[in-house]
Amino acid sequence: MTDLPLTTLTRVRRGAHHQRTDRAALYDVIDTALYATLAIVRDDRPVALPVGIGRDGDDLLVHGSTGSDFFRRIAEGAPVSLTITHLMGLKYARSLFDSSMRYRCAVVHAVASVVPPEEKEAALLTLSEHLMPGRSEDVRPMTAREIAATLVLRIPLAEASVKDNAGSLVEVDDDGEDRSVWAGMLPLRVVAGDPVTSPQTVAGTPVPESVRRAARRVAASGTA
Amino acid sequence: MTDLPLTTLTRVRRGAHHQRTDRAALYDVIDTALYATLAIVRDDRPVALPVGIGRDGDDLLVHGSTGSDFFRRIAEGAPVSLTITHLMGLKYARSLFDSSMRYRCAVVHAVASVVPPEEKEAALLTLSEHLMPGRSEDVRPMTAREIAATLVLRIPLAEASVKDNAGSLVEVDDDGEDRSVWAGMLPLRVVAGDPVTSPQTVAGTPVPESVRRAARRVAASGTA
Repeated sequence: MTDLPLTTLTRVRRGAHHQRTDRAALYDVIDTALYATLAIVRDDRPVALPVGIGRDGDDLLVHGSTGSDFFRRIAEGAPVSLTITHLMGLKYARSLFDSSMRYRCAVVHAVASVVPPEEKEAALLTLSEHLMPGRSEDVRPMTAREIAATLVLRIPLAEASVKDNAGSLVEVDDDGEDRSVWAGMLPLRVVAGDPVTSPQTVAGTPVPESVRRAARRVAASGTA
Repeated sequence: MTDLPLTTLTRVRRGAHHQRTDRAALYDVIDTALYATLAIVRDDRPVALPVGIGRDGDDLLVHGSTGSDFFRRIAEGAPVSLTITHLMGLKYARSLFDSSMRYRCAVVHAVASVVPPEEKEAALLTLSEHLMPGRSEDVRPMTAREIAATLVLRIPLAEASVKDNAGSLVEVDDDGEDRSVWAGMLPLRVVAGDPVTSPQTVAGTPVPESVRRAARRVAASGTA
């Protein structure tokens, strides 16, 4: 895989030593995320909303209603910024000034393209596999009307920055801070609870393997 | 508390029945969050980054380095969109089309103001109390140099939307879907792990109550 290029948009300006330029780091942030915060410019102001994501090779997929003004603007070429943050913990330094969050974060800059009608069903299945792996085999197929009502957008992963400060707890030896003050980290992770069955499900229907699989994935990554 | 006004920027366009206009809902999303995704327009493109947050009454506080181009632009009056998302679970419907995320989300639209020098220390303590309650009593006071190096921005919570679809699992009785397919929800929550002590801390230093308090707060809300 080629490295991510350093451009005006992607060069990390603060805490640059935490930048990662390998695609594996970017794909790991994406593949362990269920949603991203998608930002556009609307009437000269920023607006950013959470959206479910899926990765299809070197592209990200997002979907929305064909009736959504937000998605329509992106379909018409409005540049996007797509941010994924995995908060990994709180770093308690020996001063408030040096205290911080521990996180992995990816920011993608792109102009999206609209997935053409003949590729929409496959793209929606890719999204579904990312968000709810195996679920498409539990449920009925999508209908033509459902596919027609959905706008699917493809966002190239060509220009992106990844920042990861979740490494070891490094302190400079001669920083003059008091080592008798406790310093360290409070780790944070996402966990899945027990599945809740909808009351209208036929009594005795077992929780499908796909749902257990999604729970295991969250348990493995600690992120969502 | 007055309700949040419905404006061009705040009226929810999709899934409008999930919109909440009470300030209590907004403050709850904020007070159970450690960070937000802050978006601005830079050179006609959106850019959005995660930032730690604190609430001070009817304002949000964020802080960054005085050397940060991103924060400087906000200080100079660039409009912001600030998005907080609490992903509460995955909703498994009886079709892929109706499947979705369960979340609480707040989007704030504002122009920030710079906290003046004489109010900065108090504002930084408010931020610290939000992020690491009680921690300021464990550590040394901030220095004048640290305060000077920090830009603190105040974001009024005047124009904001809140969307909450994390309520009960409602299905329309006559939707024609197959009730023998399992439907339901996989809950997701954030948990804190055991605190990790920095190796340079004097051996035997106990984990402070402030860190345990932060862990309890995450446990209570399930969000971060």
